Amino acid sequence: MPGSEFSEIPREANHFCGCDCPFDQSRLVLFGAPYDASASFRPGARFGPSAMRRDSWGLETYSPLLDKDLEDACVSDLGDLELPQGPASKVLDQVQAMAGAIIRSGKIPVMIGGDHSLTLGAVRAALEAYPQLHIVHLDAHTDLREDYLGHAYSHASVIRRCHDLVGDGRIHAYGIRSGLKAEFDFARQHLDFHPFSLEALADLASTLKDQPVYITLDLDILDPSILPGTGTPEPGGIGFHELLSALALTAPLRVVGADLMELSPPLDPSGASTAVACKILREWLLLMAFPS
Amino acid sequence: MPGSEFSEIPREANHFCGCDCPFDQSRLVLFGAPYDASASFRPGARFGPSAMRRDSWGLETYSPLLDKDLEDACVSDLGDLELPQGPASKVLDQVQAMAGAIIRSGKIPVMIGGDHSLTLGAVRAALEAYPQLHIVHLDAHTDLREDYLGHAYSHASVIRRCHDLVGDGRIHAYGIRSGLKAEFDFARQHLDFHPFSLEALADLASTLKDQPVYITLDLDILDPSILPGTGTPEPGGIGFHELLSALALTAPLRVVGADLMELSPPLDPSGASTAVACKILREWLLLMAFPS
Amino acid sequence: MPGSEFSEIPREANHFCGCDCPFDQSRLVLFGAPYDASASFRPGARFGPSAMRRDSWGLETYSPLLDKDLEDACVSDLGDLELPQGPASKVLDQVQAMAGAIIRSGKIPVMIGGDHSLTLGAVRAALEAYPQLHIVHLDAHTDLREDYLGHAYSHASVIRRCHDLVGDGRIHAYGIRSGLKAEFDFARQHLDFHPFSLEALADLASTLKDQPVYITLDLDILDPSILPGTGTPEPGGIGFHELLSALALTAPLRVVGADLMELSPPLDPSGASTAVACKILREWLLLMAFPS
Amino acid sequence: MPGSEFSEIPREANHFCGCDCPFDQSRLVLFGAPYDASASFRPGARFGPSAMRRDSWGLETYSPLLDKDLEDACVSDLGDLELPQGPASKVLDQVQAMAGAIIRSGKIPVMIGGDHSLTLGAVRAALEAYPQLHIVHLDAHTDLREDYLGHAYSHASVIRRCHDLVGDGRIHAYGIRSGLKAEFDFARQHLDFHPFSLEALADLASTLKDQPVYITLDLDILDPSILPGTGTPEPGGIGFHELLSALALTAPLRVVGADLMELSPPLDPSGASTAVACKILREWLLLMAFPS
Amino acid sequence: MPGSEFSEIPREANHFCGCDCPFDQSRLVLFGAPYDASASFRPGARFGPSAMRRDSWGLETYSPLLDKDLEDACVSDLGDLELPQGPASKVLDQVQAMAGAIIRSGKIPVMIGGDHSLTLGAVRAALEAYPQLHIVHLDAHTDLREDYLGHAYSHASVIRRCHDLVGDGRIHAYGIRSGLKAEFDFARQHLDFHPFSLEALADLASTLKDQPVYITLDLDILDPSILPGTGTPEPGGIGFHELLSALALTAPLRVVGADLMELSPPLDPSGASTAVACKILREWLLLMAFPS
Amino acid sequence: MPGSEFSEIPREANHFCGCDCPFDQSRLVLFGAPYDASASFRPGARFGPSAMRRDSWGLETYSPLLDKDLEDACVSDLGDLELPQGPASKVLDQVQAMAGAIIRSGKIPVMIGGDHSLTLGAVRAALEAYPQLHIVHLDAHTDLREDYLGHAYSHASVIRRCHDLVGDGRIHAYGIRSGLKAEFDFARQHLDFHPFSLEALADLASTLKDQPVYITLDLDILDPSILPGTGTPEPGGIGFHELLSALALTAPLRVVGADLMELSPPLDPSGASTAVACKILREWLLLMAFPS
Repeated sequence: MPGSEFSEIPREANHFCGCDCPFDQSRLVLFGAPYDASASFRPGARFGPSAMRRDSWGLETYSPLLDKDLEDACVSDLGDLELPQGPASKVLDQVQAMAGAIIRSGKIPVMIGGDHSLTLGAVRAALEAYPQLHIVHLDAHTDLREDYLGHAYSHASVIRRCHDLVGDGRIHAYGIRSGLKAEFDFARQHLDFHPFSLEALADLASTLKDQPVYITLDLDILDPSILPGTGTPEPGGIGFHELLSALALTAPLRVVGADLMELSPPLDPSGASTAVACKILREWLLLMAFPS
Repeated sequence: MPGSEFSEIPREANHFCGCDCPFDQSRLVLFGAPYDASASFRPGARFGPSAMRRDSWGLETYSPLLDKDLEDACVSDLGDLELPQGPASKVLDQVQAMAGAIIRSGKIPVMIGGDHSLTLGAVRAALEAYPQLHIVHLDAHTDLREDYLGHAYSHASVIRRCHDLVGDGRIHAYGIRSGLKAEFDFARQHLDFHPFSLEALADLASTLKDQPVYITLDLDILDPSILPGTGTPEPGGIGFHELLSALALTAPLRVVGADLMELSPPLDPSGASTAVACKILREWLLLMAFPS
Repeated sequence: MPGSEFSEIPREANHFCGCDCPFDQSRLVLFGAPYDASASFRPGARFGPSAMRRDSWGLETYSPLLDKDLEDACVSDLGDLELPQGPASKVLDQVQAMAGAIIRSGKIPVMIGGDHSLTLGAVRAALEAYPQLHIVHLDAHTDLREDYLGHAYSHASVIRRCHDLVGDGRIHAYGIRSGLKAEFDFARQHLDFHPFSLEALADLASTLKDQPVYITLDLDILDPSILPGTGTPEPGGIGFHELLSALALTAPLRVVGADLMELSPPLDPSGASTAVACKILREWLLLMAFPS
Repeated sequence: MPGSEFSEIPREANHFCGCDCPFDQSRLVLFGAPYDASASFRPGARFGPSAMRRDSWGLETYSPLLDKDLEDACVSDLGDLELPQGPASKVLDQVQAMAGAIIRSGKIPVMIGGDHSLTLGAVRAALEAYPQLHIVHLDAHTDLREDYLGHAYSHASVIRRCHDLVGDGRIHAYGIRSGLKAEFDFARQHLDFHPFSLEALADLASTLKDQPVYITLDLDILDPSILPGTGTPEPGGIGFHELLSALALTAPLRVVGADLMELSPPLDPSGASTAVACKILREWLLLMAFPS
Repeated sequence: MPGSEFSEIPREANHFCGCDCPFDQSRLVLFGAPYDASASFRPGARFGPSAMRRDSWGLETYSPLLDKDLEDACVSDLGDLELPQGPASKVLDQVQAMAGAIIRSGKIPVMIGGDHSLTLGAVRAALEAYPQLHIVHLDAHTDLREDYLGHAYSHASVIRRCHDLVGDGRIHAYGIRSGLKAEFDFARQHLDFHPFSLEALADLASTLKDQPVYITLDLDILDPSILPGTGTPEPGGIGFHELLSALALTAPLRVVGADLMELSPPLDPSGASTAVACKILREWLLLMAFPS
Repeated sequence: MPGSEFSEIPREANHFCGCDCPFDQSRLVLFGAPYDASASFRPGARFGPSAMRRDSWGLETYSPLLDKDLEDACVSDLGDLELPQGPASKVLDQVQAMAGAIIRSGKIPVMIGGDHSLTLGAVRAALEAYPQLHIVHLDAHTDLREDYLGHAYSHASVIRRCHDLVGDGRIHAYGIRSGLKAEFDFARQHLDFHPFSLEALADLASTLKDQPVYITLDLDILDPSILPGTGTPEPGGIGFHELLSALALTAPLRVVGADLMELSPPLDPSGASTAVACKILREWLLLMAFPS
């Protein structure tokens, strides 16, 4: 480490803005998963975590809406996993290892994607610790394909793979507006399924009570006018404040893991999508840190 | 044609997703018109048809909103006209030839633009077959200039040229929010004119009954937040669901031709505008295929 | 000057579309301030004035909403200041000189930015002429930092610098949705402060009566879906018609100077943000020219 | 005009850097022709003149290579023609009118394109004044098609149209490296044809002596590594210093008109191509102004 | 199929320009492999085949350098494989199936990538038919890693995987200028290795005589000034004419398969890289079709 | 710090690839200076250091040309200074503080810019320690303006400011090809001035012997075909290998500080310019680390 003379020269930080709480004191722990090799249509989500860290510094740490400050929330940021853009199985193992280590430290992992396929790794880690885990799925797409052109671990199949693990009635899906007819049929039969809007989230807290919950947020649930920078934009989505309100409805849940996936910076030349992703993460972290 | 060994190797298709119905069995027939040489401000619409075909594969063929599938709608896709970026008269002739041939085959042409000037070619073809044709014009701009810097076949004059052909009272214009004062005056005198919104479309079906109708949709009717990727974006426009609802109001009409114009992919670096155009086309094709 | 033979050959103009009124006859006078060296996060606003002039020609001069035409409003356009991207003090002096000269000519300066720091120069000029000046501040950000990393004339401090000059109660701020907690506290104590929305503007005319007012509009008050092309996009903002309505509420005020800041064309690859900025300027100029 | 107080406030200029000589005193006269409706492949050249004027200010007016300064060359700049993106015939008439008026004023027109089709208008004007006109054609493409998909005034036919006017032996073409076989055959029969390189230009001055010459430079003669920003990039072209040397070889010619065509700024995101075009124009103007 | 009336209306084609020879009559057969999920650094090569087909129409089919025309070369184009962006093994199988079917038809497969990992599939097919196969490897990178972050089928390992199959002395590598020290050591021991330049290719024909050869060309062998649009640009590479000359040196070889990989259109905003790739493919196809 | 379980999970690093030597053991020390507020023409260099760190991972640490590896060179990387985009004086102080602290630790600072104005801060620090300092200036531009529009600390004046400090004969400038005539005159009088090429560098080592030298490299010395991504591209520059050879000529010098300035990532959409900058830095660091 350079000497004391250097300590007075301010240098730029590498963590998400406001998230430099020491690991031991933190309750919420960020990590990035820069991988998109399963993206069927347009790649780019691998650059999501680094873009969000960089552009988070254009935000403030203080939320006027919530009147809370990230600097008081004690969130730490472990940086990004080093992932090959290769076979899904190895990558899912690494995500599972990281999320599991955080959970075993008594903390809550918050993963920044990366494509949606990675959620499976974090869900596996959460299931190990919480076999009764419920999953809240906020997304534009069903992600319930048995496989995609023969690929079982594509981002288009991730919720189907989760269902393989948790079975019927423990996945609660909201806002879905795209999928095969067969996927919609499957969803209606096997999931707690609320397509098109997020309103039904209002009832979830009273249903789940204190059961452990993993929340996965695919950012393409937002309308492409709000967040064009994602691999498979799906017009006709929900608004920014609508999503914030829905996340507020999840505040009473017992969240044991969470993720925010599918920001694709190469498809965001203005940076507005990255700003949206950062602000949603800030508000969500504050809601999880100060749940009351 | 390569031999049978090849038939088992899946290859990518070139048609709009879900639109591979054999021509003879189809009722709706797509074709692209990649031309933008009349665009007064910023070109690029010539790349609209190919971008929409390519990006349509990021959509599903199934519409959860309508609970219908394009694969059941029997739409065929004839690909793109080969058009010079030259004199409008020759290009309009080719559009007219294609639209006319489709109509004479007993089918409904659906043209993907290209700039709005091309609508004149398709309207001419429809008028040949249906002299009592009405025109429904959905657009941000009046397009009623006598000429634009001396150019009579510019996209800024296309509805004026249509009016030359059909006369007063047979053009029904909705959503217009931009034009010269003289154009607004002309519109009020000679058109069935409903500026700023699409609400008045609710009355059209009962007025027109079973008279033949050509519908031309300039995508810049949408707000630029929804569809920035167009040559002359006009702020203050309508929303995605608002447009879908308006198209649903046209389902009872006897549509004999239609077009969707002015997507400009070079102005759509995120691809979100192309996704919007594709989804509107999918929903519109389903509405035309399953009108009840 | 070339001879008469040339006078019949039409050439392109360099002023904002519809703003070629002779200086002597004009009441409103545009000038551009292409400077962004104080932008803390992402530069680019220096290209705002030239991009707006160029793209204004994709607009019409006629406003169907107001049924007024810019060509009847007698606005002149003095072009752009030549500014170094260097020390703020020199640049502010030049802005002050230009705005002051316009005011001393009995006219109203309307500055096109450039970054928000420049507002201080124009406010100084207005204060010289109107010591009782009030300031209306429409923005996403408080801009009330004492300094930004030691820089007192950053765009993040401009309203604090204005407060240094006018003191408590004479700055009326609307729509603010981002800032440090300390800035929000300062705002509540020292400003007439209405965060999050523009509704409270309805009461301002009756409060201020005929006191002189400078209005500064930071375009990032708009939601990034409407205007992504700005240096510090702040999600959760207001809509296009909402802003137009708010500007209509300022029409009864005695406006003695105005500005429209922070469009960043390099962050606007589709051109939609520039179109929004141009249309807002057109409507605002018409509202100031025809206040009744 | 604003009063004297304004004269001390520096404002940005609109002419090509260093080209503000009063028209009457100038020998070389610039004008822009912002039109690209004939571009067969990718449009964008319409934005060439304005981009070159804007970015010329990143250059100096002084050439260290030539040890001459544009400010001593007395070049004036008439700005851009206002051209519809419509029928070629009208546009060619306007180019002819402008070039002709400059020639009749005893000066040399230098046109900044726009697409190559416009050269025909300027050549017509030069032929009116100089019936014995020779044409020097520097290009990657033959541009000798009888027509392009039926369009006779496309940029792919412009030299064929010139040949219609001047006949055999009066077009001297250099550097051509692309075309139909039929075009190469035509060139070999009817033109003074030197494909692939510019070396043969060394002999031209002694051949032409003081006969009047129009020089047309299609910037795509440069290798795409030097100038990627053009509509039909053709790999394997010549270098920057190679082109400057060739232009120096034309300095002894009696040039009566010139143009520099086909820069396409939308295809130049880095701005390097525009810088190349500007520097070539500066050096070429200096060579024409100080032929020594 | 639509009726005869349609046959006179020209429509745009989907094959690489000049490559519409009927399959049965063709000797060279193109196919595209749109896959890049193994790209370690920046994806995008999946869009290579479609971009090359589209932009090939900005080229001519005639080569003035070779005085040959693609329309006389009888090349057919089977379009693109439909590939999941998933597990490499399945994708390699499909590439192998396609290349194998072409070889078994007595023809020469020419694959357009796609990332370099796919070469393994085509090499496997060629080895099945020609167990004595030699491989010519033209590339900036060694591609000899045992694995990349544990991924054995990455594009950084493809030549190592080929070496697993063919063993020492049968891979002839040219132009390599980047890799781990261990890879350079391996190359020197096990390959016929000629780093930095292509000159040594002059000797290969006399060495290999009529042994069967597969040639794999990674386009990043070109200097990034010539071809910036590739995932891992490596400065200090070779020039356009240098590569053409090297390909001419391979004309006497008995080529039984070939590929051209790693064009990444999203990294090619000007289109110049795609033009380079298209022209190299045209010249190479002509060299293979007319070897003398 | 997270516990041992985490140590086995690989995470991505934030330093320049291969530069993770502990500070105490290092001889060469990198730091970034993300500032561009003095850029007169087009900003963006503030993003240079972070882009170079990120994209350095697409390079290898091993140089085949030098047969040396960065991992053996013991370079450390202190990250980026946190700089306001404000008054130059404060920023220069921070650069001076950092460079000075490194020098006082007995090491050699290597600064990654940032715009060229920052060099003054590092030169001041080097002068404090080495009053007899010589400066080697590699650049396309003279940077010798007394001021730029009144701004004395612009990047266009940085070498003039250095001359103020060191006086005649101690600045050795190479490769300059752009400037005012007055600047060239000044250079010839007061500098050791070698415009247009780098050849004269061959003599410098024998002249300077072991006098201390600071080397400043403005990347725009490269031809824009090699490095388009810089704020003021100047056509007609030098090549990649030419620059490497010149840097090799500086290896015998007693270098006490160095910088590499003016990469502008927003002007580098393909990433090729950033790759060039990274590779030059790698080779230069190796040359400084292994001078023999």
